[in-house]
Amino acid sequence: MRPDLLSRVLSLLPDSGTRPEYQQYHEMLRDYPQRGGKGIRSELLLASARAHGVGQETPEWEAALWLAAALELFQNWVLIHDDIEDDSEERRGQPALHRLHGVPLAINAGDALHAYMWAAVHRADVPGTMPEFLNMIHHTAQGQHLDLCWVEDRRWDLVEDDYLEMVRQKTAYYTVVIPLRLGALAAGVAPSEQFTPAGLALGTAFQIRDDVLNLAGDAAKYGKEIGGDLLEGKRTMIVLHWLRTAPDAQRQAFLTQMGLNRPDKDLQMVADIHRWLLESGSVNYAQDYAHAQAEEGLALLSQAFQHAPDQVAAAEMLAAMRELATREA
Amino acid sequence: MRPDLLSRVLSLLPDSGTRPEYQQYHEMLRDYPQRGGKGIRSELLLASARAHGVGQETPEWEAALWLAAALELFQNWVLIHDDIEDDSEERRGQPALHRLHGVPLAINAGDALHAYMWAAVHRADVPGTMPEFLNMIHHTAQGQHLDLCWVEDRRWDLVEDDYLEMVRQKTAYYTVVIPLRLGALAAGVAPSEQFTPAGLALGTAFQIRDDVLNLAGDAAKYGKEIGGDLLEGKRTMIVLHWLRTAPDAQRQAFLTQMGLNRPDKDLQMVADIHRWLLESGSVNYAQDYAHAQAEEGLALLSQAFQHAPDQVAAAEMLAAMRELATREA
Repeated sequence: MRPDLLSRVLSLLPDSGTRPEYQQYHEMLRDYPQRGGKGIRSELLLASARAHGVGQETPEWEAALWLAAALELFQNWVLIHDDIEDDSEERRGQPALHRLHGVPLAINAGDALHAYMWAAVHRADVPGTMPEFLNMIHHTAQGQHLDLCWVEDRRWDLVEDDYLEMVRQKTAYYTVVIPLRLGALAAGVAPSEQFTPAGLALGTAFQIRDDVLNLAGDAAKYGKEIGGDLLEGKRTMIVLHWLRTAPDAQRQAFLTQMGLNRPDKDLQMVADIHRWLLESGSVNYAQDYAHAQAEEGLALLSQAFQHAPDQVAAAEMLAAMRELATREA
Repeated sequence: MRPDLLSRVLSLLPDSGTRPEYQQYHEMLRDYPQRGGKGIRSELLLASARAHGVGQETPEWEAALWLAAALELFQNWVLIHDDIEDDSEERRGQPALHRLHGVPLAINAGDALHAYMWAAVHRADVPGTMPEFLNMIHHTAQGQHLDLCWVEDRRWDLVEDDYLEMVRQKTAYYTVVIPLRLGALAAGVAPSEQFTPAGLALGTAFQIRDDVLNLAGDAAKYGKEIGGDLLEGKRTMIVLHWLRTAPDAQRQAFLTQMGLNRPDKDLQMVADIHRWLLESGSVNYAQDYAHAQAEEGLALLSQAFQHAPDQVAAAEMLAAMRELATREA
């Protein structure tokens, strides 16, 4: 995220305490934001605000920056809890927070960061934004529940529509729909109704692109372990499509590995499965689907911004959205 | 909690969903509120609102009820996460949520319930209440961090002031200080500055009373397992006072047991320690301390309400606070 946004996020967090325990607590709150995410959602919100006519150095721009800080805080508290829920080892190249401090302290730090997200919403003081954040959490938690249920119950009898429902709820609202809407609200404008279908399509394209990069990306550019999703047993469109078409022996080998806990998995077999997936048509199938979703979303979005006050900013935003859905990292 | 308040809480939570996974998610959100807590904090808030002149069936009363619902939602999401952090087995006579559904789904449900707490604050629409909830979470999370750190580091080299700091942060703000303040704000009145020292003293008295009941209470009345805190290794004023005065052999036996994980503890030895604690003067010492704190808090509170518009309601509230600090269950 941009440095001035990080400073804004950190300015909300507590930073004094006589006891060493409190200092540790404050460091835990600052840890994930300081690891530096890409700031995709906050940039989209700011781009939407500019396209809606918000000029730099206005009170509306200041409010948009607080809303952007709130989105970053959302992302960070959710990641702390997600990392526990998935028992992830790493986050942004360093050990996950619960691996550093244990699960109890990390749950508590995530809860506190959640509250500071609301502090940022409060600071922005833009009418109509509280329901947007409530709606965002509702969808994200519902999608997360779906995903976690399938892991818990070791379910693989899923179809592509199941995946799409999960991704819309869990990723598309907080990544695209809500940032677009918050940008409008920061400008004092009612959000276009087309932001929802546009955002759901683009959010889906964004997530499928992420799934593709995780399997077939360039490790140096992507920054995460290639194949990590496979090892974690993530339900992706690629895997669900492949399960429908794979030879019986391959499908059986896959289901056997997915029935094992992560430390018990046969890494050579997982590497074979990885290769089968890459050699199948399923990566291309998912990429084509993502491409179509991106085009659909971009068309809706460019319609929605047709009469936006700042057409230069609107065009930049559309280009950035296209880049996100087709990115290499 | 009173039935109309429970209905209000439930009315905020999602209750439709075509997928069985979503139905499970909705049931998880409703589970803890429906198990029925005592509603201590919401009742205190409502009593404070009445004493400040809020009459039944007014818009201010309606707002106070939404704030009371928000306090109940706070209590419930915190309990879901606390139960994971302490790995508790039971809550209100039934298995803890994470024992029913696993840790990942329970963390996620707690996060969603946290968001619905803010939905209730939003519905109340009373100026100045968002910072109160932020402040409440800040103190509670900070106190929780302190408590969890000591457990994580197996620290017993603590003095009574450490305990008092932890209890003020973790319990007193959300149990007394903030409910008193929210009652004033619901009436459109600036909260008395004396609510903070009064609430810290009364909150401390309340928690020490709870610690005493947990060791020496009547199981039938108290409703929780007597000695449960001891088995969980809770840092209480009673234990910290006793550690300073106990014979060396008893202290050593205690520290040995506390160094073991719960399943490895020697239950006969824990029962012996329980008896030593009851036979020592430490229970009385803590009870006397709680008594003095209660008197100090009640004196401050009765001063603060000296000119309150509804003196009958103020007197009832003071009597209820006295009852809480001296209760048998």
